[in-house]
Amino acid sequence: MHPTNKRPENEDLSTAWTPALKKLVARCRDQVDEALGTLLRDPNRYTHDVYRAMRYSLTSGGKRLRPVLCLLTCRLLAGRSAPALPVACALEYVHTYSLIHDDLPALDNDDFRRGKPTCHKKFGEATAILAGDALLTEAFALLSRRDLLRRLEPDRRLRIITEISRAAGLAGMIGGQEADLQAEGKQVSLDYVNALHGRKTGALIAAALVCGGLVGGGDPRTLKTLRAVGNRIGLAFQIQDDLLNVEGQSRLTGKATGTDALRQKATYPALIGLEESRRTARRLVQEAVALLKPFGPRGRPLGAMSYYIIARNR
Amino acid sequence: MHPTNKRPENEDLSTAWTPALKKLVARCRDQVDEALGTLLRDPNRYTHDVYRAMRYSLTSGGKRLRPVLCLLTCRLLAGRSAPALPVACALEYVHTYSLIHDDLPALDNDDFRRGKPTCHKKFGEATAILAGDALLTEAFALLSRRDLLRRLEPDRRLRIITEISRAAGLAGMIGGQEADLQAEGKQVSLDYVNALHGRKTGALIAAALVCGGLVGGGDPRTLKTLRAVGNRIGLAFQIQDDLLNVEGQSRLTGKATGTDALRQKATYPALIGLEESRRTARRLVQEAVALLKPFGPRGRPLGAMSYYIIARNR
Repeated sequence: MHPTNKRPENEDLSTAWTPALKKLVARCRDQVDEALGTLLRDPNRYTHDVYRAMRYSLTSGGKRLRPVLCLLTCRLLAGRSAPALPVACALEYVHTYSLIHDDLPALDNDDFRRGKPTCHKKFGEATAILAGDALLTEAFALLSRRDLLRRLEPDRRLRIITEISRAAGLAGMIGGQEADLQAEGKQVSLDYVNALHGRKTGALIAAALVCGGLVGGGDPRTLKTLRAVGNRIGLAFQIQDDLLNVEGQSRLTGKATGTDALRQKATYPALIGLEESRRTARRLVQEAVALLKPFGPRGRPLGAMSYYIIARNR
Repeated sequence: MHPTNKRPENEDLSTAWTPALKKLVARCRDQVDEALGTLLRDPNRYTHDVYRAMRYSLTSGGKRLRPVLCLLTCRLLAGRSAPALPVACALEYVHTYSLIHDDLPALDNDDFRRGKPTCHKKFGEATAILAGDALLTEAFALLSRRDLLRRLEPDRRLRIITEISRAAGLAGMIGGQEADLQAEGKQVSLDYVNALHGRKTGALIAAALVCGGLVGGGDPRTLKTLRAVGNRIGLAFQIQDDLLNVEGQSRLTGKATGTDALRQKATYPALIGLEESRRTARRLVQEAVALLKPFGPRGRPLGAMSYYIIARNR
């Protein structure tokens, strides 16, 4: 099921962040928030803090970027986003676990996240480590649960688990996080920064699109396109994150500004400057939008999301 | 495929730790060691320490109890253990991750494990946290990999992922670890200690048997029996661990002795005394062996392993 372009080439609707699209994305976010609330249950009469810490971090105002991208991709192919909801939630579990662990004193040692105390600041280190572990573990419990994703062939479910575990693993997020820590205070190449962010941020964002595509019934060619789109959106997102760390407003981002520079982090602005970083992000989004062209108007929400990603101020 | 007893009732072969059985278990261990070496690859040209830390902890002389139990269970039902090897390795990944994180300063703060420096002592906290995360993640990558477990129906693979993620999650290991931390220095009931250890240790050991049974083609009744056996072996194992912490020899266990008492941990010896703890462990193993009776002589290796678990001195 590979889509073909049905609109004239010169009509660039992908960039339009219309009220209808805004509403669609808001609805996706609400769906995710609701599902996250329902799916995470405390199964343990002796567990208190870890469960509370998981909920705290899951519900402290994330943008839900990965789940929304997953839902929009499923909708792009299948016309509906709801079937991908459990996968969208699993992606948010994995993302939230990575934030909790990255904020730990031994890693980035951050006290604030989204304007609230980080998980370990609120619940202590032991609980934060366990809450991260639990979110990662429960993501896979979610993806394999018999009562969810019932209409999806087991083979596709296994591929989703492969996608998410690889994106989160040594070749993905964890490898990226290590590369990030190793680069602190050192002079590194643009190649290094690209590989770092491709892993640390890009991999899970690309997985969000590929997994949405797997639920939506995408064929191999479509999945390949979605991965290419995801890689570009992922890198553009990270560049914007780096830019916000330099010139963003703490009040809006909920994080301290200038911390990357203080820690001599390997970032795009540090390596190629603000202007070139902005240009690179814009070029990546344009490439993503171009890759979405064959989907025609149905690709608009994803295209608009891509532009939103580099226009956001938080 | 539920087995029936073909040997006379009074012939209790289950307890015999014969040279042939010893050899079988040693062979299983070798298979696991070899597969662990092959399956864990460094996919990342920028990753160094995390990968080395994973290998360090995976190869620092564990007993391979969970993988061996998984292989023996598969062999019990299917006559061969090899098909369960990837699952056995995934279980060892999950077990090893839990040890790395439990040893961290914020949790048990242990400096030695199996007679060697713990992961964070050797590689630092950041790397140890990431190595644990990576082992947990790669376990699920392993279980979903297309080139492994190819003869197993996708549905059974998904059930294995459910088993392991639940055993490792909030209702299992993580819930148990939290209950353990919360109980330190407090007076808790025997019920509490049972629930704690059932989760912290019992769940993954039971999962090892159930997953071996799933690979081996076990029907629901057989899987239920295997879970009951696993729960008993798991609890007996934990009691023996507690006993070794009181009266074991550091030289053999590779861990400091008496640390549970110092930390006022919720243990069986602390609650019911050494004698009653030994009796309970023995009773649990007898129950496990009785549950294995219907399998006849094929159940001997698992029965012997159960006795080994409470006879071990390390």
